[in-house]
Amino acid sequence: MRYVRDNIDRLAAYTPGEQPVRTDVVKLNTNENPYPPTQAVMRAIAAVSPDQLRRYPSPQATTFRKAAAEVHDVQPTQIIATNGGDELLRMVMTAFCQPHPQGGRGVGVASPSYSLYPVLAEIHETSVTVVPLNDDFSIPADFATRLNDTACGLAMLVNPHAPSGRFQPIDQLAEIARSFNGVLLIDEAYVDFAQSDALSLVRGESAMKNVVILRTLSKGYSLAGLRFGYGVAHASLIEALDKIRDSYNTDAVSQAAAVAALQSRADASQSWKKVIDERQRMTHELKALGFAVLPSASNFVLASPTPGGLAAADIYRSLKDRGIFVRYFDQDRLRDKLRITIGTPQQNDALLAGIKSLETSSV
Amino acid sequence: MRYVRDNIDRLAAYTPGEQPVRTDVVKLNTNENPYPPTQAVMRAIAAVSPDQLRRYPSPQATTFRKAAAEVHDVQPTQIIATNGGDELLRMVMTAFCQPHPQGGRGVGVASPSYSLYPVLAEIHETSVTVVPLNDDFSIPADFATRLNDTACGLAMLVNPHAPSGRFQPIDQLAEIARSFNGVLLIDEAYVDFAQSDALSLVRGESAMKNVVILRTLSKGYSLAGLRFGYGVAHASLIEALDKIRDSYNTDAVSQAAAVAALQSRADASQSWKKVIDERQRMTHELKALGFAVLPSASNFVLASPTPGGLAAADIYRSLKDRGIFVRYFDQDRLRDKLRITIGTPQQNDALLAGIKSLETSSV
Repeated sequence: MRYVRDNIDRLAAYTPGEQPVRTDVVKLNTNENPYPPTQAVMRAIAAVSPDQLRRYPSPQATTFRKAAAEVHDVQPTQIIATNGGDELLRMVMTAFCQPHPQGGRGVGVASPSYSLYPVLAEIHETSVTVVPLNDDFSIPADFATRLNDTACGLAMLVNPHAPSGRFQPIDQLAEIARSFNGVLLIDEAYVDFAQSDALSLVRGESAMKNVVILRTLSKGYSLAGLRFGYGVAHASLIEALDKIRDSYNTDAVSQAAAVAALQSRADASQSWKKVIDERQRMTHELKALGFAVLPSASNFVLASPTPGGLAAADIYRSLKDRGIFVRYFDQDRLRDKLRITIGTPQQNDALLAGIKSLETSSV
Repeated sequence: MRYVRDNIDRLAAYTPGEQPVRTDVVKLNTNENPYPPTQAVMRAIAAVSPDQLRRYPSPQATTFRKAAAEVHDVQPTQIIATNGGDELLRMVMTAFCQPHPQGGRGVGVASPSYSLYPVLAEIHETSVTVVPLNDDFSIPADFATRLNDTACGLAMLVNPHAPSGRFQPIDQLAEIARSFNGVLLIDEAYVDFAQSDALSLVRGESAMKNVVILRTLSKGYSLAGLRFGYGVAHASLIEALDKIRDSYNTDAVSQAAAVAALQSRADASQSWKKVIDERQRMTHELKALGFAVLPSASNFVLASPTPGGLAAADIYRSLKDRGIFVRYFDQDRLRDKLRITIGTPQQNDALLAGIKSLETSSV
């Protein structure tokens, strides 16, 4: 017997963006918030006692659930805490998709999108229905119909969209949820940098029974290192997800930090304003340098260099040589583009200067 | 379409031991170490910087892998860090078991054992082969053969055994691994309180290619609240497990704490000695009170009250009323027993006094 299952054996694992060990680089490749977490978070971590570490944490992160319910005006039974948003992505697949490639209940995704989705599907050995986005990265009107045709049990959409930054109208997401026979996961990893969100779909008496909203503290709350995400959904879906959680999936330190993060939301939102301001400036500046830049509601922009000039891949590599990291995706529809995280004004200036120096040296 | 998969819908979720919110109780029900984590761990957590939280952590916990490899005299490529030992249990099932109930590659377990194993199998929708342990909780000689008969892809054994505390000879585990056609997971959650371990099976040139050893910092290192475990195995198995990890499965705080924990192992081992001393005393004292107590190599004992006296379930409930928590399993072969975590001398004395007071009041 080969020890490893065939689908795992042949799996090409997800490749996260590069995490350089050097700290003297300009790191605009993995969409971290350039500003530090709030002081309330640092205080909460410092206040964790030896006894809290010694004991098992709250299995359901009870205090966090209450805090999140309060912030979002839902019930605590509508919240599940997860070890980063990524854990929730795996969990919705486990709960709603059948691991039989031929048996229906697969997952439907848009393309291009977060490249982890299909990897999770391969691990779970469920079928994937891929619907190409329109040229402007909007969602095709027949998205739900096409997923129903293949009997998908789950759809995954990220909004604001990655890697384009486009904000999909909430009305359209609601319409997809209504038409779709399975569960719609709306990945709002970047929503803190947008003007609106989909929480109204899961709030109150008329909450939809097939929508899960993913949130993470990684971006908006500058806590990528902490691994804390959560889901908001109708209590019936949360109950199912709760059953398949690892028994103690979030730890005492991150629970304490997460509560403090949500409760110091007003402080965190200062960083969102700065990022949004810089996003506008960078869109303008990159356009001035000849890039086509899509309107973004996120903390990154997707930018295409002038056709006929330096290729995106070359710019990516040359910037990296200069200690400036942006993200390049060697795949259809993205090969001519760069995804650039919005940093501090200083980091953004360094990027712009880096690009200008490439243009000069290539003349 | 029903939104939730049938197997998840009908699943009876794992029930962890009760975690009372009150801190004025004598908590001897979930096998926590009664002594605090080392000062090095507390210092490591306090030293985590805002920038470490802001950035993504090392996806593979690289520094930790090196530290663990050094402590255990293996290669860093033989280590995988996980979000508690429980995550590794789920991951071995994902990597080595087929989620088709009829298709072989199921999991084999001994009974009684850690009640999470069959729950994970139900979630993964893989078949379970249950082999009853001998009357003294030793492993039957035909364990591997019976698992081969049903084409299991994975076997899970906990050593020291839970809930009996029995230490299974390493020679027998090696023989099982040699005879078994799948992967043998040896769950060493409690091994810090034993005199030996199974690391020799995965060390050096002759490392077995089908053995994964699970370790956790929850018990020995007093870090149940932190959720940090790891696997030690032949690099070929670690490579497969690494592919199915959630992209950033351990966080920056716990990675820093885990490195400090292993490096302050000598300090932590002081608590192991105290627990072992108290285990001997408690075995003696409980026997003096008429209990049958199995020899334990762990930080708990499995104790049966005198037949004809108060039933185990009644003792459990009456102690709980007095604020003393022990673990009661309402299942075959355990219904007449209590699993009692070894606490501090004071906690253990409180338990003994509690038991004595029950006997008095029942006369």
